[in-house]
Amino acid sequence: MLNIGIIGAGRIGKVHGQSIKFHVKNAQVAAIADSFWTEESRQWAKEMGFTTYDDYHKILEDASIDAVMICSSTQTHAPISIEAIRAGKHVFCEKPVSKDLGEIKAVMQELEKTNLKYQVGFNRRFDHNFRAVREAVTSGKIGDPQIVKITSRDPDAPPIEYVKVSGGIFLDMTIHDFDMVRYLTGSDVEEIYVNGAVLVDPRIGEAGDIDTAIITMKLKNGALAVIDNSRKAVYGYDQRAEVFGSNGQVAVSNDTQSSAVISTTDGIIGEKPLYFFLERYMESFAREVSEFTEAILNDTPVPVTVVDGLQAVLIGMAAGKSFKEHRPVKVSEIQF
Amino acid sequence: MLNIGIIGAGRIGKVHGQSIKFHVKNAQVAAIADSFWTEESRQWAKEMGFTTYDDYHKILEDASIDAVMICSSTQTHAPISIEAIRAGKHVFCEKPVSKDLGEIKAVMQELEKTNLKYQVGFNRRFDHNFRAVREAVTSGKIGDPQIVKITSRDPDAPPIEYVKVSGGIFLDMTIHDFDMVRYLTGSDVEEIYVNGAVLVDPRIGEAGDIDTAIITMKLKNGALAVIDNSRKAVYGYDQRAEVFGSNGQVAVSNDTQSSAVISTTDGIIGEKPLYFFLERYMESFAREVSEFTEAILNDTPVPVTVVDGLQAVLIGMAAGKSFKEHRPVKVSEIQF
Amino acid sequence: MLNIGIIGAGRIGKVHGQSIKFHVKNAQVAAIADSFWTEESRQWAKEMGFTTYDDYHKILEDASIDAVMICSSTQTHAPISIEAIRAGKHVFCEKPVSKDLGEIKAVMQELEKTNLKYQVGFNRRFDHNFRAVREAVTSGKIGDPQIVKITSRDPDAPPIEYVKVSGGIFLDMTIHDFDMVRYLTGSDVEEIYVNGAVLVDPRIGEAGDIDTAIITMKLKNGALAVIDNSRKAVYGYDQRAEVFGSNGQVAVSNDTQSSAVISTTDGIIGEKPLYFFLERYMESFAREVSEFTEAILNDTPVPVTVVDGLQAVLIGMAAGKSFKEHRPVKVSEIQF
Amino acid sequence: MLNIGIIGAGRIGKVHGQSIKFHVKNAQVAAIADSFWTEESRQWAKEMGFTTYDDYHKILEDASIDAVMICSSTQTHAPISIEAIRAGKHVFCEKPVSKDLGEIKAVMQELEKTNLKYQVGFNRRFDHNFRAVREAVTSGKIGDPQIVKITSRDPDAPPIEYVKVSGGIFLDMTIHDFDMVRYLTGSDVEEIYVNGAVLVDPRIGEAGDIDTAIITMKLKNGALAVIDNSRKAVYGYDQRAEVFGSNGQVAVSNDTQSSAVISTTDGIIGEKPLYFFLERYMESFAREVSEFTEAILNDTPVPVTVVDGLQAVLIGMAAGKSFKEHRPVKVSEIQF
Repeated sequence: MLNIGIIGAGRIGKVHGQSIKFHVKNAQVAAIADSFWTEESRQWAKEMGFTTYDDYHKILEDASIDAVMICSSTQTHAPISIEAIRAGKHVFCEKPVSKDLGEIKAVMQELEKTNLKYQVGFNRRFDHNFRAVREAVTSGKIGDPQIVKITSRDPDAPPIEYVKVSGGIFLDMTIHDFDMVRYLTGSDVEEIYVNGAVLVDPRIGEAGDIDTAIITMKLKNGALAVIDNSRKAVYGYDQRAEVFGSNGQVAVSNDTQSSAVISTTDGIIGEKPLYFFLERYMESFAREVSEFTEAILNDTPVPVTVVDGLQAVLIGMAAGKSFKEHRPVKVSEIQF
Repeated sequence: MLNIGIIGAGRIGKVHGQSIKFHVKNAQVAAIADSFWTEESRQWAKEMGFTTYDDYHKILEDASIDAVMICSSTQTHAPISIEAIRAGKHVFCEKPVSKDLGEIKAVMQELEKTNLKYQVGFNRRFDHNFRAVREAVTSGKIGDPQIVKITSRDPDAPPIEYVKVSGGIFLDMTIHDFDMVRYLTGSDVEEIYVNGAVLVDPRIGEAGDIDTAIITMKLKNGALAVIDNSRKAVYGYDQRAEVFGSNGQVAVSNDTQSSAVISTTDGIIGEKPLYFFLERYMESFAREVSEFTEAILNDTPVPVTVVDGLQAVLIGMAAGKSFKEHRPVKVSEIQF
Repeated sequence: MLNIGIIGAGRIGKVHGQSIKFHVKNAQVAAIADSFWTEESRQWAKEMGFTTYDDYHKILEDASIDAVMICSSTQTHAPISIEAIRAGKHVFCEKPVSKDLGEIKAVMQELEKTNLKYQVGFNRRFDHNFRAVREAVTSGKIGDPQIVKITSRDPDAPPIEYVKVSGGIFLDMTIHDFDMVRYLTGSDVEEIYVNGAVLVDPRIGEAGDIDTAIITMKLKNGALAVIDNSRKAVYGYDQRAEVFGSNGQVAVSNDTQSSAVISTTDGIIGEKPLYFFLERYMESFAREVSEFTEAILNDTPVPVTVVDGLQAVLIGMAAGKSFKEHRPVKVSEIQF
Repeated sequence: MLNIGIIGAGRIGKVHGQSIKFHVKNAQVAAIADSFWTEESRQWAKEMGFTTYDDYHKILEDASIDAVMICSSTQTHAPISIEAIRAGKHVFCEKPVSKDLGEIKAVMQELEKTNLKYQVGFNRRFDHNFRAVREAVTSGKIGDPQIVKITSRDPDAPPIEYVKVSGGIFLDMTIHDFDMVRYLTGSDVEEIYVNGAVLVDPRIGEAGDIDTAIITMKLKNGALAVIDNSRKAVYGYDQRAEVFGSNGQVAVSNDTQSSAVISTTDGIIGEKPLYFFLERYMESFAREVSEFTEAILNDTPVPVTVVDGLQAVLIGMAAGKSFKEHRPVKVSEIQF
């Protein structure tokens, strides 16, 4: 049984706390730390039966805690990662590891000195649908991948205050899709071109960001990829993927609450996609922690490494550069 | 927090034990009893951290236990139900309550003397798809129900030894579908006619049972219903339902492991239905116990009553009579 | 090039006239006869460039005409069939051949004296979807058929005046489905049981008919079948079929005008089925006449024989008897 | 009744000849000309009952012929267009009008002097699925278009000899998709970027062409678009489209021969898409000529103008330039 300390009791920290408690067999939450407890969060921790701290150092200092999950705000991911590694804790870090490449390098260097496990929170790799796509690809059922298509649209734009500090759509939202391109094909990205626009909310444009994008990539294995993003799909969270290859295609569509189809004079009506990532990816949050736990307990490689975390950030930065300079950009142009 | 004792550590007892431990918030398994522990079952109970007994009376005598789940063999359901009620325990009883109407009556009479909760294990009422059908019906979206269609086919026939003691397909397998007809329409069944055959395995016929059936019913609300059953659908567990009404239709299809569709020279290939009831209905097992728990904690009515259990058995008996006498049979012909 | 005379310029006569003109390669309409020409029908015939007659005997007397299509009212089908056979014409007769078994026998006897072709208008046998089902069955892809399910619902009930003279739902509407059961399985029907109701329009009940039915059958090959009928499906013409067998299942769903799916805040909305039989089965009307034409030109068997026409009527009569006597009825109980 | 002369008795000429004969009400084929008649083509024309010429000038000189359809090889489209216009014929010209912008300009100038109709053969605009998408867009059902996605993949690459003279994938194959982007959105294209590769057949690369592409566009109305092309989808002709907007999305999927779904131990298997453009778009070929015919008979605008033909060529040329110069290219960079 692995003892896990959670750092950060915000939305994603709670998701992990709850999923570990109810769905992860070989782990338990030893404590959860947050510097700004709300009344509601404290109540939640009490109901869960979790020990709470204001200072996450209490978790790092607790010798009975094997691993930490870093669920705090993005700019703290790298510094806490380094502290945790130094404290001898295995680390599960939410994405992105950092928006600063120097910080990622520092985490990687610190990690190299140890045998600790470090996993990045690309939870979609653990989703039943995307796993089925990858399985079809790696099993050779569709032959050599030639075209990868990912549709990834949120049900609604985040608050404009969040947009301003998010680091931009590529590092905040598309980063999951960049990782998915790598996961589905097993190939790195060579070059990227961004076709972006502000079509959802002009304030997003005023904040220097975009809300709609079609992003094409050349992969190192020769395949082509495209991601289309929107911050606002009124019908709900649209999460699809296709890989087309020399022997066929595999595609996954959205999950719904039920398979009910209602036929009336208005048409044949199915359910909308599950609303947002909490509903859609809840199982994947439990699975990523289960696999993290097993990697530690069995001393096997983690399924999402810090290099995976780095690559997604590099692609995101190349995307930003492509949009800014209005030209295709090689990922290798990003200095690391 | 409700303390639950489980009686019977067979397949369904384990399902409930596991789902309570991992998925039911306000309940815990205080103990599990079985008179014939296998090595593997004992190991399982140990991993779950459950107290084990050889004699279920230990559970009935334990004042800290609030409720029991009767997961033992069918012929013990009614006698243990009565013992448990007398011991002041709330009861969750697997279906069928009994294959003997006198026994069901005895349970009902015992229950009437108390304020205890008694719920029958028609788990499919708690399934996301069937709930969506019922919701479409009760909300009036499809108008007055006119035709109800249920397809219910197992992936493979049970061992012939099981078939011999099962009480026949109607009380063993179709009983869920009989309950589903009542659940989806909110109406009792008036008359039934069975068109049955032995097409899967002649040994089932030799054992006096059938393995394939089309069963039509007239409901008290005037609607017509049909169930089609097979003991063996080679492509997997086929669980569908449709309700057609004056304003439209609602239909649900099978659940699959993922939405992956693979297109090759062989065709456009989707996944088979989830294999069998454990895979297909796992969530519903947790939900039925959650609602049982809440009914006890909040002193509200249970969602599946002993009368629901009785009605399904009465319909099953009328079905048997219809098949034997080769004519439509009114449920009221069955003496209770 | 086959010369065809059409007898009856009502709805179905026009369908055939138009489809022969535009879609049947080796045939042309030599003339069309009707005893009550409306202004609109006469105009239509003029646009088509068809010779028109008031008296269909003109067609029978025309030596240049090879075949006749009998599209007149049902009670004239048999007498005109006999006249046409005597006149040496091949006959395509709309369903049913007659509601009187003696008349069908007379047609059969007349036919036996000749080498003329006689085809009955069960157009659905020529539909792309139902052909795909039959192909899956006859190719052995699904093994031995065990359960056949047909859903056949009209978008709206016919005028009550029509219902009164229609001969009842079984000979008017379900007769297509009876033939479909035989077509999909290649087996005759042994026994039938009808579960019927008046749920759409009480005037249909007052006219001695029903508007909603679930009809189960035992087939001679041992399989079971079920048809569900409604005179009014508000979402449109619902025409589906499934055959389940020892090695799998084949199912067809409704056709729509396009595959467009619109996703909005209201749900994921597909198109309703094509409205009614003219829209849904237009291609099959052309194909049945093409195959009739080829059978004549190549002197090969017609794809739907007078025996097929007879069998569907016998099943329909057994259905009527079952409903009236409230019991399963063997088709062999109907005297022929 | 319109008299049409067809110039070119190759594959597409035959398609039009046959569809006019059997499916177009107000037109007939007066003659068909080809300079190299094969035995098989001559036989076909005989069966159709068409007058044949070796020299298309016979058609242009025939005063009884109202309109010509130019189905000859691409490099003859413009010169014959000009001759036909001068001869006072309405013109239906297969795509592309020309691969030379000067020639298109010459056609346009010649046309301006007359009141003749000139339609370009973008038949997909007349397809039931794409029409449903456009209807959803123009009716406002999905709000303002933001993202357009077109998947267009052939079932197999053409012979390499054809590839060498085809003018490249953009003017040969993608030109239909460029027109579709304009048709579905009602907007012109502003800028294009091509991400292309040779993944199907290296000989295509050796011929200076590509066989796989992801092409992104900015439209004048602010929306973004993406086309993905492959010369070889082993599962068949893949023709899909989606338009995503501020109020929702509309999507169309592939057409199949039937809706049959076969469920076996191998999975749930649907039919492959209709094989190639003849099967898939046959109805659209009849409809485009019907609407051309009506535009002439009623003196209304043609549904696909020479400007539409020009725009698609301009976009195709910008695509070629983008691929060659490895950068986004504005359509306005192409001199006209």
